[in-house]
Amino acid sequence: MMAERQVILEAEDDEALDPRRVAAILDAVEAGDAARLRDLAEPLHAADIADLLEQISPADRRDLLGLYSPEIDGDILSELDESIREEVIEALPREVIAEAVRELETDDVVDILEDLEEPQQELILGALEDADRVAVERALSYPEYSAGRLMQREVVVAPHHWTVGEAIDFLRQSENLPDQFYHVILIDPRMKPQGYVTLGRLLSSRRDVALRDITEDSFRTVQATEEEAEVAYIFNQYHLISCPVVDENDRLVGVITIDDAMNVLDEEHEEDMLRLAGVGDESSIADGLVATVRSRFPWLFVNLIAANLAALVISHFEATIASLVALAALMPIVASMGGNAGTQSLTVAVRALATRDLTGSNAWRVIRREAGVGLINGLAFACIMGAVGSFWFGMPMLGAVLGAALICNLFVAALAGTIVPLLLDRLGLDPALSSGTFVTTTTDVVGFFAFLGLATVVLT
Amino acid sequence: MMAERQVILEAEDDEALDPRRVAAILDAVEAGDAARLRDLAEPLHAADIADLLEQISPADRRDLLGLYSPEIDGDILSELDESIREEVIEALPREVIAEAVRELETDDVVDILEDLEEPQQELILGALEDADRVAVERALSYPEYSAGRLMQREVVVAPHHWTVGEAIDFLRQSENLPDQFYHVILIDPRMKPQGYVTLGRLLSSRRDVALRDITEDSFRTVQATEEEAEVAYIFNQYHLISCPVVDENDRLVGVITIDDAMNVLDEEHEEDMLRLAGVGDESSIADGLVATVRSRFPWLFVNLIAANLAALVISHFEATIASLVALAALMPIVASMGGNAGTQSLTVAVRALATRDLTGSNAWRVIRREAGVGLINGLAFACIMGAVGSFWFGMPMLGAVLGAALICNLFVAALAGTIVPLLLDRLGLDPALSSGTFVTTTTDVVGFFAFLGLATVVLT
Repeated sequence: MMAERQVILEAEDDEALDPRRVAAILDAVEAGDAARLRDLAEPLHAADIADLLEQISPADRRDLLGLYSPEIDGDILSELDESIREEVIEALPREVIAEAVRELETDDVVDILEDLEEPQQELILGALEDADRVAVERALSYPEYSAGRLMQREVVVAPHHWTVGEAIDFLRQSENLPDQFYHVILIDPRMKPQGYVTLGRLLSSRRDVALRDITEDSFRTVQATEEEAEVAYIFNQYHLISCPVVDENDRLVGVITIDDAMNVLDEEHEEDMLRLAGVGDESSIADGLVATVRSRFPWLFVNLIAANLAALVISHFEATIASLVALAALMPIVASMGGNAGTQSLTVAVRALATRDLTGSNAWRVIRREAGVGLINGLAFACIMGAVGSFWFGMPMLGAVLGAALICNLFVAALAGTIVPLLLDRLGLDPALSSGTFVTTTTDVVGFFAFLGLATVVLT
Repeated sequence: MMAERQVILEAEDDEALDPRRVAAILDAVEAGDAARLRDLAEPLHAADIADLLEQISPADRRDLLGLYSPEIDGDILSELDESIREEVIEALPREVIAEAVRELETDDVVDILEDLEEPQQELILGALEDADRVAVERALSYPEYSAGRLMQREVVVAPHHWTVGEAIDFLRQSENLPDQFYHVILIDPRMKPQGYVTLGRLLSSRRDVALRDITEDSFRTVQATEEEAEVAYIFNQYHLISCPVVDENDRLVGVITIDDAMNVLDEEHEEDMLRLAGVGDESSIADGLVATVRSRFPWLFVNLIAANLAALVISHFEATIASLVALAALMPIVASMGGNAGTQSLTVAVRALATRDLTGSNAWRVIRREAGVGLINGLAFACIMGAVGSFWFGMPMLGAVLGAALICNLFVAALAGTIVPLLLDRLGLDPALSSGTFVTTTTDVVGFFAFLGLATVVLT
C-alpha cells in the first residue's frame, strides 16, 4: 500500500510518466538491464506504459520490448495507440500475447482485434477460450464503430419481479461477476430490459423492497447497430453511467459503460479537430515519417487545387494589377480576413452540430445571426482598412474599394462557414470533413474577385 | 413504465428533441396553452428541456418560461448553458428558484452559482438550507476551475479496519446516501483516504473479508486545488469512475465522479477547438448578435495586423511585381500552402500536448519528423507547381522560383506549427491560444518574402 501511495503523490506533483523517468528507463534499456527496467516500469499504470511505448523511437521500442515482454499484459495492449499496436504485437512472443488477451474482457479484445491484419487476428482469436472466442466473433459481426462493438457481453441481470434481498443473495453467490458494473439490469422472461437499479440503491434499500420500485429514471437502451458517436452523445447528454444494449428484437445483448463512452467522445473530438485542420483523422503523434507524409499530402493537394483556382481569378485581373501594383499588396488582406471569419463561423457550427445545439429548429436563426455578425464585422474592418488603405497609398478610392471588398467577403464567409457544414450534415456527411477547404476556397475566390473586380471598375 | 419506454424508442429513432416536437412546443407557447406545453415537455429529459431553451429565440424563451416556470427544476437549471442561465434565472419567480436549487447536490449548485452576478448568487445562497449553504460557500473558496469546485462533498466512507459485513450493515442504516456513488472510500482515523472498494466487489465478497483486502488497484487521489483539466486527464487516462479529493493535509474533503470529469473533458475540447479557430472560448451558438460580434472581433483584429504585415512585405517588392504581374497571381499559392501545412502540424501538436502524448521526452523527435514531412511535402508540391508554373506562364525559371519558395515555406510551416505550441506550453500558456495566428502570420510573411525575394534575384 505504501509503495502505491508514493506513486500517487508523484502523480499529483507531476505526470506519473515524467521525462526523467523516461530517460532512466531508456538508460536501463540501453544497458540491457531488465531488472532495473522492471523496477522503473512496475509502479506505472498500464496506460502510462502504453504512453511510454508511444513516445520512444521505434528502435528503443524494439529493445525495450525485448527486455520487458514477459511483463506486457492485456491492459497495456488495450491502452496502446493503434498506430503502434500492430508493431508491438509483432515484436511479442506468441505465448505473451496469448496470456495477455486471455485476461481481458471481450470488449477490450474486440477493440484490439479490429485494427489488426488477418494473421494477427487469427493468432489472438486462437489464444482465447472457446466461449470468449465466440463472444468476440459475435461482437465483430456488428458494424465497425457500432454499439455492438463497444459493449461488453458480461452483464448482471435480475428478473424484474425480484426483491432487493433476492438480488443481493444472487450477487453473493455469483462466481463470475464482471470487473466493473454499476447497475443490475431488470429483464422480463424474454430478456428485454425493463429498467435498472444502481448498486448504491440496492445496498441502501430494505430486503423486501421490489426491484421495480427502485429503478432509475435515467434508464434507456441503445440498439447494437447504433453508431458509437450517438452512444457517446447519449452518455454525455443524459449523464449515464452504463447503458444496456439490445438487438433488433429489443433483447439484452450487452452493456456499455461510461469509461468506454468517454473514450469514444474523446476520439470523436480528436476526429473533428483533425478533420477541421485537414489532417487525416487516424494520424497520431507516434506515426512515422512516411505515414505522416501520406496522411497530410492528400489534404494539401486539395488545398493546392483551391489555391490554383484563386490564382486563376487573380490572373484574370493582371492588367488591373499592372496598372496599380498596390492592389497586389492589399488583396491578400481581403482573402485572409475572409478565411479567418469563415473558419470562426465554421468551427462554431461544427461544434454545435456535434453537440446537437444546432438543429433544424434554430438553423435559420443561426444563419441570420451569422450573416449579421459578418456584416457588422465587415463594416468595422472596412472602416479601419479603408482609412489605412487611403493613407498608405494616398488614394481614398483605393481605401473605399478595399472596404467594400471586406464587407462583401466577411458576409460571404459567415454564410459559407455556417451553410456548408449544415448542408454536409443534412446530406449525412461529417460536417468537419473537408468543409474547411471549401470555406477558405470560397473566401479566397470571392475576396480576390470582389477586390480586383471592384478595382477594375472603379480605379482603372 | 410504458410511457417512459415510448420516449426511449423515439430517442433511438431520432433525437429525443426533434424539430417536430420543438415546433409543436412553440405552437403551444404561442397559443398560451400551458397544459399542452406541459404534456409535450413532460417526457423530455432535463438536458433536452435545457437544449430546447437554448435553441429557441429570446422572445419565445420568455413566453415559454412564463407558462412553464412552475415545472422548472434544479436539473434543468444545471443543464442550461451558461450563456442563457442568467437570463432564465431572471425570468423565474424567486420561489421556483429556491425550490429548484434546494434539491440539487452541492456540486451542481456551485456550478450554477459561479457564473452568476452577485445579486443572483445571494438569492440562491439564501434559498439553501444552512448546512448546504456552508458547503457551497466552502466550495466557492477554492480557485475557479479547480477540483474543489468540481467535487461533491457527499462522500461514503468506512474506517479502513472494517469488514465487508460492517460496511454493508452501515450502508443499510444510512439515511442520507448520495444519489450516485460507486465506491466506499476507506479512511484512517485522521480522515486520510487509504483506498476504495467498489460496490460490486462489496456485494460479491463474504461478510468476514476485510475491506482493505479488496481495494482497487486504480485508486488515486487529487488535491482540491488541482486544475479541473488535470482531473479530467486523470479520469480519462486511468479509467477512473470516481476519485477522492483531499486537502493540503491529505484529508478527504470530497469526491469527483466520472460524469463531472466527462463534462470537463468535453469543455476542454471545445475550448481547444474554438481557440485554434480564433473564436472566444466562451462563445456559444445561443449567443446573441452583439455577444457574437464582441467575441469574434478581437481575433479578427489580430489577424488584420498580421495580414497588414504580409501586405507590407509584398509592397516592398512592388517593382518586381510591376515587371512580372504573374507573380501576383502565384504568390497566394505559396502563402496558402504554407498556412495549411502549418495548421496541420499545429493541430496535431496541440492535440498531442492535451493528451500528454507530446512531452519533453519526444519533442525533438517529433520536431525532426515534422521538419522531414515539411521537406518531403515541399519537394512534392515544388515538382507539381514548378511544372504548372512553367507551362502556365511559359517561363521555366518562374516555375523553379515557385517550387523553391514552396519547399522553403512548407519547411518553415512544419517547424513553426510544432515549435510555437511547444514553446507556449513550456511557458505555462495554453498552446491552442493564438498560436494559429502566429503560425499563419509566419507562413504568410515567409511565403511572400521567399517567393518575391527569389523572383527579384532570379527573374528581374
